[in-house]
Amino acid sequence: MVEALRSLLGRDKITVAAAALEQHSRGESYDLAVLPEVVVFPEDVEDVVGVVRLAAERRIPVTPVAVNSSLEGQTVPLRGGISLDLTRMNRVLDFRPDDLQVTVQPGVTYPQVNDHIRRRGLFFPIDPGAHASIGGMVSTNASGTMAVRYGVTADYVLALEVVTATGEVIRTGSRSTKSSSGYELTRLFCGAEGTLGVLTEVTLRLVGLPEVALAARVPFPSLSGATRFVTALIQAGVPVARCELVDEGCIRMVNDYQSAGFPEEPTVFLEFHGNQAGLAADAVLAEELAQEGGATAFEGSPRAEDRGRLWEARHNLFYAMLAAHPGKRNITTDVAVPISKLPEAVENAQLVCRRAGLPGYVVGHVGDGNFHVIIFYEDKESARVEEVSHLMVEHALMVGGTCTGEHGVGLRKLKYLEAEHGPSLALMRAIKRAFDPDGILNPGKKLPLGL
Amino acid sequence: MVEALRSLLGRDKITVAAAALEQHSRGESYDLAVLPEVVVFPEDVEDVVGVVRLAAERRIPVTPVAVNSSLEGQTVPLRGGISLDLTRMNRVLDFRPDDLQVTVQPGVTYPQVNDHIRRRGLFFPIDPGAHASIGGMVSTNASGTMAVRYGVTADYVLALEVVTATGEVIRTGSRSTKSSSGYELTRLFCGAEGTLGVLTEVTLRLVGLPEVALAARVPFPSLSGATRFVTALIQAGVPVARCELVDEGCIRMVNDYQSAGFPEEPTVFLEFHGNQAGLAADAVLAEELAQEGGATAFEGSPRAEDRGRLWEARHNLFYAMLAAHPGKRNITTDVAVPISKLPEAVENAQLVCRRAGLPGYVVGHVGDGNFHVIIFYEDKESARVEEVSHLMVEHALMVGGTCTGEHGVGLRKLKYLEAEHGPSLALMRAIKRAFDPDGILNPGKKLPLGL
Repeated sequence: MVEALRSLLGRDKITVAAAALEQHSRGESYDLAVLPEVVVFPEDVEDVVGVVRLAAERRIPVTPVAVNSSLEGQTVPLRGGISLDLTRMNRVLDFRPDDLQVTVQPGVTYPQVNDHIRRRGLFFPIDPGAHASIGGMVSTNASGTMAVRYGVTADYVLALEVVTATGEVIRTGSRSTKSSSGYELTRLFCGAEGTLGVLTEVTLRLVGLPEVALAARVPFPSLSGATRFVTALIQAGVPVARCELVDEGCIRMVNDYQSAGFPEEPTVFLEFHGNQAGLAADAVLAEELAQEGGATAFEGSPRAEDRGRLWEARHNLFYAMLAAHPGKRNITTDVAVPISKLPEAVENAQLVCRRAGLPGYVVGHVGDGNFHVIIFYEDKESARVEEVSHLMVEHALMVGGTCTGEHGVGLRKLKYLEAEHGPSLALMRAIKRAFDPDGILNPGKKLPLGL
Repeated sequence: MVEALRSLLGRDKITVAAAALEQHSRGESYDLAVLPEVVVFPEDVEDVVGVVRLAAERRIPVTPVAVNSSLEGQTVPLRGGISLDLTRMNRVLDFRPDDLQVTVQPGVTYPQVNDHIRRRGLFFPIDPGAHASIGGMVSTNASGTMAVRYGVTADYVLALEVVTATGEVIRTGSRSTKSSSGYELTRLFCGAEGTLGVLTEVTLRLVGLPEVALAARVPFPSLSGATRFVTALIQAGVPVARCELVDEGCIRMVNDYQSAGFPEEPTVFLEFHGNQAGLAADAVLAEELAQEGGATAFEGSPRAEDRGRLWEARHNLFYAMLAAHPGKRNITTDVAVPISKLPEAVENAQLVCRRAGLPGYVVGHVGDGNFHVIIFYEDKESARVEEVSHLMVEHALMVGGTCTGEHGVGLRKLKYLEAEHGPSLALMRAIKRAFDPDGILNPGKKLPLGL
């Protein structure tokens, strides 16, 4: 196979070097590592077609990957074969500011997209944290801190070019921002984790940079007070652009890390986007709700330049955590629940961590009911960590939520799909069989095939 | 079959009365009429399961319908069989204001949803014009006047209960507002026009009623001036909630109809939603852009109570049109294009109408590039009307748009799917075969099967 790939693509795009195989054997934050037989670096859609056709003929597994920042094992080449590394497909192909659209290759990262388009007053409002590739973000339907206002990655995907499991090139969607034509293939590829086709081009809808962005930091005496405030804020329809919750343990770490004096209380970080006059009114409403909810302070500022200072503790959080836990491993759990169930879900998560004897730090994009517990641990504690994640998922499903708000299924969440989706899983399997009958595309991920 | 249905469901839910068959033989605004063999009125999901199972065993076509306001022939029982009338499934099942969610049966209309939830300060922001059922709106992915701000029906569908082609009951989605779990079945059923399953329950996400809604009426000396203004407004990122274009012929009809004196010029109707202070600032920006764009006036008001007066001409338009064309038939074409192509697409549509010697009135939800030409005509002009629609679609596809912005494919747009979707049509057909192998669900619609 390696020789066939070399003669197809040339030597420069193929490697079997041990370091490259090792690097492509695992994702972030998931234990399993499986070496691919070969790593291929396609540079255009023709390369991808060539690789997939060869793989289809020989029934060789193909696992797409780019930045490799996914957290649930999505990029582990579970059955060996080809690791299809799309990082060289990193060009912005067509920026059309008059249509508020940009077309990029899958290996472009979202900060690169934003660097490219900012000069025209536009931005792509999905910020998952890691410097993820657009292909990866589409494939997990990533979201992050601004989803409460702007939605998820799939909401911004207008059109795709995809190489199917047989090596055909198809295009889905159009440049129209809405359509009722045909079945929704674009959405189906979003979040499919590379199991239905290889994305080779993504057309994104963009939005205007807000005229002003205001920030606020709102500490509460208890985590339940903070989550109840968030619930009230969303229920009141206050158009918040970011709404992040950070627990007191996190604030303590930030204070240690940067010798700061933030109140060591559960804290809600808010951001509002719009025009100055409108935001001032929104902030007043948020402050009233915060006071009603027992906030110990409401440090807001009508000045955009104060935003960095107010959000400092949130921005530095992960570095502070890493510094506080040298040599430890970490996991970021990921569930989402209906907003009314958020307070109970967060309390449950804390209880579960306490019972397991693990320090779990609660952070979350709580405005949309999605939150994470970050746990630092040692190898010997792995089983307990898995148990914490398991109990959080069970609770989320019980209250009508989902086993993954934004990280995707990968390998870790496979076991919950039956409970979450029930008989509709049969239709998902039918789609997989129809799109990839030989199961060569990222096999073993996203769906428990159980065939 | 009729006897089997009667013994299954009881006599009250089945009819073969000529008037009922006739009434279910056609939709609105599409010529073809085909009588079903029987009309069935299920009252709950068990009834639907019973009907579909019987239909599956005997390979009888099932065509779902409710309010029957679709425009492209979606509800015509093309191959006879069962017209499955869901209007009796019209209950609001579960209103959860704290989660901003409501679960309804498919026969509930969207005004009924809004009547039910308004008391809690919430609304479902999709307004397609006709008093459509939620099941129908989901099935065509309807949108309408507020899509530019709030999106389309599919953006509000969190979860579905669906009876599949084999009569199984499945549930898709969850009560979480976001998820990366499983394939996006919910979105796939949205816009599927009843060809993949029968919807029996819909869970909708809701939004808060805006604190204030302001309106403006902006006439222009030319249609191209009006469309260029709209394009500039969207490109500037002004968060307009409604943005409707009405041409001078329409205004003339309204003046005749209600003895009014609106300036007989192409007019853009705007609406802004938010808080008072923010809207005032948005309106100032819109007015500046209107003046730069050569508007002959900008009649806006900071007072909510003036909204009805300012939008009067738009609201009364269709009645004025009907009054001006007694005894004539009418068609509403439907294309959408990238916003930068809107001025040329509208000009092209006018040219095409003039050449065909047909008076075509341009109206549209132009903020998202979607517009309609309404044509009143006599039987003998049918071929020319079809030609106008055809040339508009060809132009839309040429500039990267879609053959239907919001009305759906039905029967009328089938012939464009190959041109719009190319090889991806094969995957759409594969989905149809996987979900409905015997082709009993609304056969002949949505996709040219060409098997």
